[in-house]
Amino acid sequence: MQQSGDSGSPSFNPLAVLEFMSDTKEEAIAWLLSRIRAPQEAGGAGLLVEQLGPGVSAEQKDNLNLFLVGASWERLLSGAEDVGLFKEYSDGSMRGFTCVNKHNFKDFQGDGDGFLSMAECQYIIKHELETLRAKDETHVPGYSHAKLYPGKSIIRRLLSKGILIQMFPLHHKEELKRLSFSWYKKIKLSLQPLDKIRHYYGEGQALYFGFLEYFTFALVPMALLGVPYYMFDWEDYDKYVAFAVFNVVWCTIILELWKRSSATLAYHWGTLCRKKAFEEPRPGFHGVLGYNPVTDREEPLYPNAKRQLRIYLVSLPFVLLCLYLSLYVMMIYFQMEGWALSVHDQDPSFWTGVLLYIPSIIYAVVIEAMNLVYRYAAEFLTEWENHRLESSYQNHLVLKVLVFNFFNCFASLFYIAFVMQDMVLLSQSLATLLITSQILNQFMEAFLPYWLQRRRNKKMIRKVQKRRTPGDKELPLAEQVRLEADMSTYLGTFDDYLELFLLFGYVSLFSCVYPLAAVLVVLNNVTEVYSDAFKMCHVFKRPFADPAANIGVWQLAFETMSVIAVVTNCALIGMSPQVKAYFPESETQLILWTVAIEHGLLAFKFILTFLIPDVPKHIQIKLARLEFESLEALKKKRQINAGKCWKARSSGRASSEERRTCRL
Amino acid sequence: MQQSGDSGSPSFNPLAVLEFMSDTKEEAIAWLLSRIRAPQEAGGAGLLVEQLGPGVSAEQKDNLNLFLVGASWERLLSGAEDVGLFKEYSDGSMRGFTCVNKHNFKDFQGDGDGFLSMAECQYIIKHELETLRAKDETHVPGYSHAKLYPGKSIIRRLLSKGILIQMFPLHHKEELKRLSFSWYKKIKLSLQPLDKIRHYYGEGQALYFGFLEYFTFALVPMALLGVPYYMFDWEDYDKYVAFAVFNVVWCTIILELWKRSSATLAYHWGTLCRKKAFEEPRPGFHGVLGYNPVTDREEPLYPNAKRQLRIYLVSLPFVLLCLYLSLYVMMIYFQMEGWALSVHDQDPSFWTGVLLYIPSIIYAVVIEAMNLVYRYAAEFLTEWENHRLESSYQNHLVLKVLVFNFFNCFASLFYIAFVMQDMVLLSQSLATLLITSQILNQFMEAFLPYWLQRRRNKKMIRKVQKRRTPGDKELPLAEQVRLEADMSTYLGTFDDYLELFLLFGYVSLFSCVYPLAAVLVVLNNVTEVYSDAFKMCHVFKRPFADPAANIGVWQLAFETMSVIAVVTNCALIGMSPQVKAYFPESETQLILWTVAIEHGLLAFKFILTFLIPDVPKHIQIKLARLEFESLEALKKKRQINAGKCWKARSSGRASSEERRTCRL
Repeated sequence: MQQSGDSGSPSFNPLAVLEFMSDTKEEAIAWLLSRIRAPQEAGGAGLLVEQLGPGVSAEQKDNLNLFLVGASWERLLSGAEDVGLFKEYSDGSMRGFTCVNKHNFKDFQGDGDGFLSMAECQYIIKHELETLRAKDETHVPGYSHAKLYPGKSIIRRLLSKGILIQMFPLHHKEELKRLSFSWYKKIKLSLQPLDKIRHYYGEGQALYFGFLEYFTFALVPMALLGVPYYMFDWEDYDKYVAFAVFNVVWCTIILELWKRSSATLAYHWGTLCRKKAFEEPRPGFHGVLGYNPVTDREEPLYPNAKRQLRIYLVSLPFVLLCLYLSLYVMMIYFQMEGWALSVHDQDPSFWTGVLLYIPSIIYAVVIEAMNLVYRYAAEFLTEWENHRLESSYQNHLVLKVLVFNFFNCFASLFYIAFVMQDMVLLSQSLATLLITSQILNQFMEAFLPYWLQRRRNKKMIRKVQKRRTPGDKELPLAEQVRLEADMSTYLGTFDDYLELFLLFGYVSLFSCVYPLAAVLVVLNNVTEVYSDAFKMCHVFKRPFADPAANIGVWQLAFETMSVIAVVTNCALIGMSPQVKAYFPESETQLILWTVAIEHGLLAFKFILTFLIPDVPKHIQIKLARLEFESLEALKKKRQINAGKCWKARSSGRASSEERRTCRL
Repeated sequence: MQQSGDSGSPSFNPLAVLEFMSDTKEEAIAWLLSRIRAPQEAGGAGLLVEQLGPGVSAEQKDNLNLFLVGASWERLLSGAEDVGLFKEYSDGSMRGFTCVNKHNFKDFQGDGDGFLSMAECQYIIKHELETLRAKDETHVPGYSHAKLYPGKSIIRRLLSKGILIQMFPLHHKEELKRLSFSWYKKIKLSLQPLDKIRHYYGEGQALYFGFLEYFTFALVPMALLGVPYYMFDWEDYDKYVAFAVFNVVWCTIILELWKRSSATLAYHWGTLCRKKAFEEPRPGFHGVLGYNPVTDREEPLYPNAKRQLRIYLVSLPFVLLCLYLSLYVMMIYFQMEGWALSVHDQDPSFWTGVLLYIPSIIYAVVIEAMNLVYRYAAEFLTEWENHRLESSYQNHLVLKVLVFNFFNCFASLFYIAFVMQDMVLLSQSLATLLITSQILNQFMEAFLPYWLQRRRNKKMIRKVQKRRTPGDKELPLAEQVRLEADMSTYLGTFDDYLELFLLFGYVSLFSCVYPLAAVLVVLNNVTEVYSDAFKMCHVFKRPFADPAANIGVWQLAFETMSVIAVVTNCALIGMSPQVKAYFPESETQLILWTVAIEHGLLAFKFILTFLIPDVPKHIQIKLARLEFESLEALKKKRQINAGKCWKARSSGRASSEERRTCRL
């Protein structure tokens, strides 16, 4: 944290940036700044704010309403207590940080400088800004339509009214350089620096990269097993079945073991036992004024029945319509495929050979485009459903997007597998889809944004160089902040997880038809690590840390996929000619056996899920120990109180405090 | 609580009884009594104990080492805080009881007499006795082999060494009379007095009776629907399928709705939010001395690997052997059945007609006998596995017993349904098994013990009447206590739930073959309520209250059963001749459709489970409110502290306490 702004006092460390509309009224800004600066006892946030200078390359169109937010160390420490940060205690356990006990925490030295990571400081700043509540103001000064109610978050209101454009944390050039060096700059065979990633980006990001790494390693045995199947064309009955059974069991086990790894990571990062803060309504939530039954505060209420109506009468039909459309596109693809085949058959040449691949590639591109368009529609609809909580919004969005993406990506494969029953075409399509979507994804999510960002960067550097001595490539703070403010916003790990989810689908659903899928996915994941790391560091604005304890709804999504995988794999095995040859006289017997085995595998899967504990033993012991200690402390406190009362009662003399506690 | 002992001071209310071995050494008893009587501040339990007088009918063989335990009101209130009792607050919410706040609780009047129910008082006494811990004693005085370690529960050690025979709560004649009158004495159409049952027996018992009642009402629609099916012999394809689909969906819905009802009950009884106390090792647990990694206390440790070995190398093979045996018995039954049929066919007469029913009845009796014997074996094995916690012991016992009972009761039905494919025999066997096991159960669990108990009671009354004036039928306290000490111990709700579980199996697994099953189960449940209530009040010792928040592992067991029911019902429908007629040319098509519908139903079931929230909205709001308030209180406290520190720091003067809190 040596980075010191060239604007402001030397002790001021800028941590986050507030960007207002360029024509925001002076009085609104002055009022907000005074509220942010006011000490907590006076109902303020107790933070430091300074306006960003115009910078060397000041232009007419530059927004001058950029403010840097920071805080004193004492304020950050008390903020750490407010957000309920867990830190390592001197005895090695993780405990909720309290200012009273601060000297007993492991890395707390001197006055605590360096105790909190920059990501944690920024998270604290964000929390303190968001919980800055209106007092008796009825509206934002200068904006009579931006109404305020006592106890409501001011920043959320400003954001939803568009007065505040954005709030984002600053990058730290030095740290970022060090992180990116150990992360992806040197090509080497080593694990990702998860602790460093967590230190810089927070737990949510680090868990994503942890999962990506874990998932890649977990696929290696499958990939290794798949190679000889592909190379030697093993198609015997027993090997075939063995591979599918291995895959199905393996999927279950890796998902269970991931829960354990994730619990271990989250424990050491202090998010496993951390209590969720009370969830505020989303910024966009609107409704008729009323009283919240939980908090008794005045806030907009929106009847749940109305939301359910919107979900079931509008969103659900829309999703179904989209699914139908996706099916329709698929049928067109099969017609094109058939047409290309007939052209090739009539007059085979090099160009008709190429033509054979065209429909698949077009279809893969169309799928990606449809996913993208649908994504916007789903966001719009979910916004319109007007969910009160961010978590509920996220769940509904994820559900909508997942169902459609699953359908869109896998419908054609299901059709080929179970309606056309053409295993050769299935493995071809699988390969084409997998490879095309991988290339498209990597291009869309990393190289394209990077190229755009690079152009912007160069322009800015050129501008600065015009005014400064050439060779000084480091940008001054004002320019750096403006550059970051213009970067695209990172929208969370949603798309990254979605991509992994679909890849997992390709591997697990049809693994026994195309054993090379795992190899392709492993290769993809290795490059994915690099492109994701790169995009986090250079393409997007730094995101605020997200204190996640697990991968949330994605664990459920992956588990659902692995259940579907059992069904499809069993069906594929039952349909294979090798297996059919074992039941020459009776197809009924074959199907009954397949169904029985499938049910057995599903039962085994569920039993396995129960048998493997979600949290490793040593973490369980540590958690139990903490709980035991707090119970003991409570008991001791009660006994001391009881002892005091007993003495007071028997001696007949009692202080005023004793009188109060003992109700004498 | 007007019952006052004829021994002891007038203010002493006997609540529980401790029974020692008749030849226990004086010094051990004296030591224990002094520890129980010592105030809490001195490390004692702070309870009142008195020896029970010899009674009017004193005989040589009577055990004189019976002690009555009671407590003062203040002690009970502080005990209520210790066990974390939740009570209704003046604002209608449920809060953890604290002595400091006692006057703010709703029913707390005057000095609090009547605030706690007798069952709660007894639970507190039990808890306080069990948490009476050894200090520096190395062994129980007079018993050098009964070693003690600092911090270990004394009572558990005495129980496991057999010095203390039992500890049980006393009945309250007046209350019991009132309860039994409103419960089962008058035959009327009304709900069970769940609150009164909870008041007298505690939450675990009340939840069982609540579940029994709920389950009965939930089956009524099925029963009503089943009657016309049976009477008019509806065997059309569509009606058949409709009935099975209704059953399957209905099973899922009633189990989900039960979770909600149970949450509502548990909330109002204060067990929903109650924190589990730290679990002590079971009394029978043994091992090598070591340090518990959680509590750092010295206690016996038993390596988990050794326990796993015992489970997988001994218990599992044993269970499998028993299952095989059960299958063997089943095959003998089918041979007998075939032999009876051939005898009847050769020379049909009235007696051979009766003979036809004999094998089924014998088999039903053998099944019950095998269940009983297996139960003892399972208890022995689970004890031998040496589980550290009671909950882990219970889970392993329930699993063993459930698997065997399920297999034992339903194997023959599965065999008839899916191997013999004889639907007529299936519905006959189902009816025979259901009716026989119901009659046997009611007889074994209520009438037989009652008859035995009645004989004992009469003997005691006759003895007393010999010495007292005739006509005085009320027993004096000493005789009453001795009588209760001799009653059988109620072993918990295990057997009652197991019975309901098997009945649920009969109804759900093969409901579409024998639509009358639900009617029989409803009739059985109505009598079951009476016999269970009767046995609780008159056959068994009063049990200690068990503060349960739900029906625990049984919810899972019932849900598993309902999943299996989906599979069997779909298979039965697929096998029915009416459905087969719809697919005359292709059996494959039929099976594929059946499997597809089955998978659809299973998926629908799981989605339903997710969609229906486990806790009703109004309870959720109350819980959220409580959490919100505690968060707000914490924040306020921190802010007050911060304010104090700020003032102290800015004024330069600080009291010693301020210095401590603020680390100035």
